Amino acid sequence: MPLSLAVLVSGGGSNLQSLIDRIEQGVLDAEIKLVVSNKPEAYGLVRASEHGIPTRVVAHADHPSREAFDTEVLRAIEAHQAEAVILAGFMRILTPGFVQSFPRRLLNIHPALLPSFPGAHGQRDAADYGVRISGCTVHFVDEIMDHGPVIIQAAVPAEPGEGGDALAARILRLEHRIFPQAVQWLAEGRLGMEDRHVRLAPAKRPLADLSGLGPCLVNPPLEQGF
Amino acid sequence: MPLSLAVLVSGGGSNLQSLIDRIEQGVLDAEIKLVVSNKPEAYGLVRASEHGIPTRVVAHADHPSREAFDTEVLRAIEAHQAEAVILAGFMRILTPGFVQSFPRRLLNIHPALLPSFPGAHGQRDAADYGVRISGCTVHFVDEIMDHGPVIIQAAVPAEPGEGGDALAARILRLEHRIFPQAVQWLAEGRLGMEDRHVRLAPAKRPLADLSGLGPCLVNPPLEQGF
Repeated sequence: MPLSLAVLVSGGGSNLQSLIDRIEQGVLDAEIKLVVSNKPEAYGLVRASEHGIPTRVVAHADHPSREAFDTEVLRAIEAHQAEAVILAGFMRILTPGFVQSFPRRLLNIHPALLPSFPGAHGQRDAADYGVRISGCTVHFVDEIMDHGPVIIQAAVPAEPGEGGDALAARILRLEHRIFPQAVQWLAEGRLGMEDRHVRLAPAKRPLADLSGLGPCLVNPPLEQGF
Repeated sequence: MPLSLAVLVSGGGSNLQSLIDRIEQGVLDAEIKLVVSNKPEAYGLVRASEHGIPTRVVAHADHPSREAFDTEVLRAIEAHQAEAVILAGFMRILTPGFVQSFPRRLLNIHPALLPSFPGAHGQRDAADYGVRISGCTVHFVDEIMDHGPVIIQAAVPAEPGEGGDALAARILRLEHRIFPQAVQWLAEGRLGMEDRHVRLAPAKRPLADLSGLGPCLVNPPLEQGF
C-alpha cells in the first residue's frame, strides 16, 4: 500500500510538483490524497488539480485563532485519510496540538543547512551573511520552528554577492531531489529515531547519479530514482 | 617576500602543523615568525620548536585583565614583525582593541559550518543536534566570536550517533586543507571585501585533487598544492 499523504502549501508548490513527478514515475511509493493551501491563489492548488488531486483552501483570515485554523486543516486531512503530512513551502507555524497529531509523520523542507538560517528567508539570510556553503534540510517537524530531527541535508556552493535568488535556485534543484527521497524513506518505514538522531535503515540499492547537479554534497546519499 | 605570520595556539596545534608543512613544501608563501600559546603545556609549542620557530607563552592567569593579556600578546607579535595573525585552535576571546590592530589580517578556523555551532564545541554540538552535514570555516575575525566574514568553507557528511570525535576527525582532515589555502590567498593579496562578503580574486591555477578525502564539498575550490 502506498503511503497516503496530505501536502500543505502556501505558494508555487514546486516541491509538491517534485513529489507528484516521482509518484507518477513510480519511484515514490505514495499517494497524495489532498493538497491544502492557506492561500486561495497558491499555484500549488493548480498543480494539484492538473494531476487530479483533491484540493482544499483553509484561509487563515477566516479563523479566529491558530487553533481553529489547525483544527480545520486537521479535519480535512482526516477526512481524506492521509497518514502523513508534508509541508512543501507552507508558511504558517503549526500549533503543538497539530504537530503531536502526526508523530514521525510530519515532514518539512527548509532552504538552508539547519540550524543555520531558520525562518522565512533562509536563502536570502545565507546570502547576506556571506556563507560559502549553504543548502537544504528535510526534517521531522517538532514544536519549534525549523528545529526538528534532521532526515537528510544537501549542501551547495554559495558565491559572495550573487544575491539570494541565484543561491535559492541552486538550492531548489537539490530540494527537488532530497524531498521525494525522504518521503520514500518514510513510506518504506526506514526512518528510526533515537533522541533527535534519525537513523536510516540500510537497503541494498544503487545510488543516484548526481553528476548533472554540479558541485554538491548530499547525506545520506540519494538512492537510484531520486 | 613571504607573508610574516604569528600563529596563536592553545592546544595540539595540528592546524599549525598543516601551515608549517605547506610552507616547507614551498606551496604556502609565508613565514611563521612566532608561535604564541596561552598555555605552557600546549603541544603546538613543541611543534614550533621542532621547526626552529620562536615561541612565547603568555599565560592568561598571569594577567589581571583581558586587555593586559592582549597587550602582551600584541607586543610579542610586533617585536617579531608579524604582519598577520592566525588563530589555530586559540581558545581565548580577543579584545576589540586587539582585533582592530589587524584589519583583514586576523584569521580563525572553526570546526563547523558557521553560523551553525559557534563556540568551543562545534563538532560535539553538531553531533548532538543530529545534522547530516557539518564542516569547517576559515573567516576573518571580527569583534564577535566566530562571526567574521567567511573566506572558505568545507562540508563533510555527519552520521547519526557517531559522536563528536568521529565527526571531528572527518572535519579535521578538511581543516588541514582549507586553512593553508586561505592563508595563501591572504599572502597573495587575493582577498577583497565588500560589506562582509569576501571576494577571491581569480587566478588561473589548476584545482587540487580531493579524491582521497571522501565525500566533501569545498568552496571556493582548493587550488593545486592545497
